[in-house]
Formats: sequence, structure tokens, C-alpha cells
Amino acid sequence: MGEFELIRRYFMPAQVGAGVVTGVGDDGAVLEVPPGQQLVVSIDTLVEGVHFLPDTAPARLAERLVGAAASDLAAMAATPAWLTLALTLPQADEPWLEAFSGALLRRCDELGFALVGGDTTRGPLCVLSAQVHGLVPSGRAWRRRGALAGDRILVSGTLGDSRGGLETLLHPPPPAAEPAAIAQLRQRFYRPEPRLELAQRLREHVHAAIDLSDGLLGDLGHLLEASAVGARLQADRLPLSPALQQLYPQQAQAWALAGGEDFELCLTVPPERLSRCLDTARALAIPLTEVGEITAATGLQVVRAGATVLGALPSSWDHFRSKNE
Amino acid sequence: MGEFELIRRYFMPAQVGAGVVTGVGDDGAVLEVPPGQQLVVSIDTLVEGVHFLPDTAPARLAERLVGAAASDLAAMAATPAWLTLALTLPQADEPWLEAFSGALLRRCDELGFALVGGDTTRGPLCVLSAQVHGLVPSGRAWRRRGALAGDRILVSGTLGDSRGGLETLLHPPPPAAEPAAIAQLRQRFYRPEPRLELAQRLREHVHAAIDLSDGLLGDLGHLLEASAVGARLQADRLPLSPALQQLYPQQAQAWALAGGEDFELCLTVPPERLSRCLDTARALAIPLTEVGEITAATGLQVVRAGATVLGALPSSWDHFRSKNE
Repeated sequence: MGEFELIRRYFMPAQVGAGVVTGVGDDGAVLEVPPGQQLVVSIDTLVEGVHFLPDTAPARLAERLVGAAASDLAAMAATPAWLTLALTLPQADEPWLEAFSGALLRRCDELGFALVGGDTTRGPLCVLSAQVHGLVPSGRAWRRRGALAGDRILVSGTLGDSRGGLETLLHPPPPAAEPAAIAQLRQRFYRPEPRLELAQRLREHVHAAIDLSDGLLGDLGHLLEASAVGARLQADRLPLSPALQQLYPQQAQAWALAGGEDFELCLTVPPERLSRCLDTARALAIPLTEVGEITAATGLQVVRAGATVLGALPSSWDHFRSKNE
Repeated sequence: MGEFELIRRYFMPAQVGAGVVTGVGDDGAVLEVPPGQQLVVSIDTLVEGVHFLPDTAPARLAERLVGAAASDLAAMAATPAWLTLALTLPQADEPWLEAFSGALLRRCDELGFALVGGDTTRGPLCVLSAQVHGLVPSGRAWRRRGALAGDRILVSGTLGDSRGGLETLLHPPPPAAEPAAIAQLRQRFYRPEPRLELAQRLREHVHAAIDLSDGLLGDLGHLLEASAVGARLQADRLPLSPALQQLYPQQAQAWALAGGEDFELCLTVPPERLSRCLDTARALAIPLTEVGEITAATGLQVVRAGATVLGALPSSWDHFRSKNE
């Protein structure tokens, strides 16, 4: 099977989405941005052996790729619209492609993306890049800058679970671990759940936002730097899942601070909007937890029971630094 | 140097382009599509060892990546606007990054792109994906479909030069070859010159279009299939450069038909628009040559001095097929 046949067979049943004038199968896609909306774009790459193990099921790769990319749109309070895919593969393996494209199109459909184009190339290992396109009412996109002293810091969901899920894949889980808890952590690792609806519902109340892809300390650090402020985090308030606490009680708090790949939102809101935000999240049945506040003094402090446990701004997880330096 | 420092140092001096509300350095870029315009997007990937030799100069890679991606916009008659980059590298090699990012930003600037975002990841080999975003007046994008029987087939520039340039890199050029001719062919291989201005000036006259990335036979084949028509090509009319004819007189015509990576335009225009199109190209000093015509009967015929030399529709060059089948 050649490249063109491959595209036709696996990626042409692309959804006809809103605003898609011309989709897969021409030199480019032609798209219509509605009046009063701005376009939000982000690109994300997964590399075999770096971001995933070589034998990872293709459906899981597709779900992780689309979910992680969509999380960047949630962090801007944008609504998913279109997705393009750059796929490098050692060979055109039909069962792999069928499983991958099926899961990709399904996940795109669930999150609101139309697949509108892509490029398939042969290469010695699997590399996947997804470019996502979202829409946001003009001038209403969230940014990393904009946090003000006194803002409360909120995080969605629970933190550290994805890191816990990875741990169960790398090392045998504790003998007493419940299978349901193991499955729950792995699901968080494999299948990011971007907080798109929460972001859209909170759009008008938030001063600054980022999604948690590299760990709360590092990502909040980016937000603080962009906003030229500091923060005090309450370690005791970090939202931890029962599954993570059961399996990894010693590591849970550290992973919540620096585990990476949570794909939850970190938001800063003025105090007078706090209860409204919490109510909105409750109505959606999505945990939203106040974990600290923005300070005028720069730097990131982590306190536990009133005592500072971490006083400097640590650097976040970093693709190049992590293994080479 | 870590990922964030790398982005800051080499990719943050990104141009502030028209319509860029938020560029590099947030979770996504926020972009403004002007009223009355549609968005055209395309993604292209270059893989080390597949699309380029491991020791290729980084500036040449950048020029090839941006030029080839922009050619897809030319094929839709769109104007370049924004570019995002997914960059996978074995390590953060500073001289490499400095040369690559310098050439990338320069070429983006020349062609009219603002670099608005990207993702840098570590991986065992270099993989580059560029997603280009262009703008076109609503409803005026060219497509592969739309060719009508009787349309004249036009190609821009000269064909086969890029294939000739690659040949000079893979094998010693003929001993009598002039250095200037060798340099000229290599330049065509390394530095695609997308026909953006020609496309914009011919926008209203063209029935169907495609850019020549995989070779005229294959790419015209896609256009014919999308338009449900056939074509008769005149082999004697194929535009060949003096350099290609001097170095590779035996192969020149075959490479013009099936060489790949020319990044010229192939257009079909109704006969009554032919002379106007040729005049427009002449005013821009861009060669534009009539090489055949569209037929109602499907299939692609190549004729030379009135005799058919190739009667079936050949399949085009294909990433997966080329080496595995």
C-alpha cells in the first residue's frame, strides 16, 4: 500500500466539520473562521522511545496525541475546530493504521475536531505531530500573563495520576494495589481528558491560565514569569486521587507538584470570582481546587502547615535538559 | 541548554506579523483571519535519512522546509501568513540551532510568514514538520478538481532540475560539467522557490491547480483524478533548463516527467485565458509553458512528435511504495 492509498483508506473518512470548505485530499485544507472569532493554534509531537514505548497500542497513541494537543486549546479557553496530522512510520502496517486512524477519528469526533489534512512519511521510527486549531471569541483567549497579586490559584481534577500510571508500567505496582486503582492511573496516563468545557464556562472569570503538561511547579513558573508575579502554594491542598494515595502514598505529593502530563488546568482568579468558579465546576462535576495565591513578590514558595518547604523557583521538566544535562 | 531556553534564544525573535494577536511563548498562538478571507493550512515533514542526508547544512534544511510547505499555499493561490514548527532533535546543538533558526526566520520573512509557535522535542534523529497557514479571498482557493476538457495545461519554471541537483550530490557530476550549472541545479534542490506571486496574479483565470512535489506525471494524475478528466502531454514541450540539458541530456526529459521536488505549479486554464496567463507570467519574468491539454477521455497520454510514448496513467512517486514495494 502506498502513501496515497493509505491516506484514502484510513484518513479520508474525515468528518466534514463546521467551517471545512475543503478537507483532506487537496494540497491544503480551506477553512472558514466565523466572524467575531479568533483562531488559536498549537502543535504537539510524540516521539517513539521518548514519549511512548515502542509497543504502545496505536489507539492509545492516538488518544494521547489528540487529548494532549486539545489541552493547549483548553488552556486558551478555545473551542476545538480542526486538526492536521504529520505521521512518520517505518512501514505502512495495516492493522496498526486501522487501529490508529479509527481511534484518532473517534477521539477527534468526541472532542469536536474535524481532521482536515496531514502528511504521511516513511522514517526509521514513529513520530506523530498534531496541529490543533481552535476558535475563541475575539479578545477572549486566556494567556499566561495577566495574573495579579491576591488572585487565587485553582487547579482542575487531581494531580500526579499520570505519573503514577507511568510508574505502574515501568515497575511492578505494589502487591496490595487494587486492579481498579492501577487501571485508573493508567487511564490518566494514556487518555488525557482536556478540560475544554470547564475552560469555556469559566472564560470570563480568569486572569491567567496554563495547562499542566510538565508539572505544576514548572508550568505555574511559566505563568508567574509571564505575569511578573510570584505565588505561594499550599502543599496540603493539592488534589490527590484515592488511587494515587493508595498506590504511592510516599510519592503522591511530589508527583502532584512535578509529575508531568496531568493535562489539567491551572488558573488564577480574583478572590471575588472564586465562589462562582467553584460553583461552575461543581455543576459540571469536575473537581476544582484552590491551592494557593498569587503574590506581588516574585518567586514560588511551597508551604505545608504554615512552614516553607520549598523556597526557590525550580525549573520545570524539560525535554532536552532531562537526559543530557 | 533546556527546551525553554532554546525556544527563547532561537525562536522567540519571531516576527510580529499581520494578524498575530499572541505569538510564540504561550500555550497556543492567537491569530486573526481578516473578514472576507478563508484560511488555508498544510503540513509537511522532513525526516533525516529519508528526505535529507544527515550532514545537510541546517540553513538548507530550513529553506527547503519552508519553501516546500509554502508551495502548497501557492497551489491553492493563497498568501502566506503564519507558520508553526515541530522540531525533533538528538540534542540541543547550539551552532546547528543558530544556523537553522536564523535561516528559518529569514526565509519566513522573505515569503511572508510570521513564526507563531512550535514544539521542540528530543529524539534519536532529526524530524522537522512545518504547518503553514495562508489566506485567500473567500471562495477563491484553487483546487485539484475543476479541470475541463479543452483546458490547456501550463507549468511554471523548468522541470527536473531538483532531481538533477540531487544526482550531483549522490554521484560525481559529468567531468565536462560547468560549476555554475552544477550550482544552479543544487540550488533548485536545496531552495524551493514557491510560485506565490504568480499564483496570486493568475488566481481568477485557473480551473484547477496542483504543485509539483512528486513529479509531473504523478501530480497531474491527482489533478486528473480529482477532476474526472484525462490529459495529453507533449513531451517535446517540457521546459528544461540549459543546466539540466548540459549535465544530463539523456535523463532530462524523464526527470522533467517524474523527477519530484520541482515545487513548480501545474495549472489548467480555458483556451481563451491562455494568452492572458502567459502575458502575466512574462511580466513577472517567470517561465510559464503550455505542455498539453485536458481531454474528456480519462487517462494520461504522453506524446512526442505526434506518437504516443506512454499510454497508461503511471502512479506517482510514493513515500511508502518507493522503498518497500
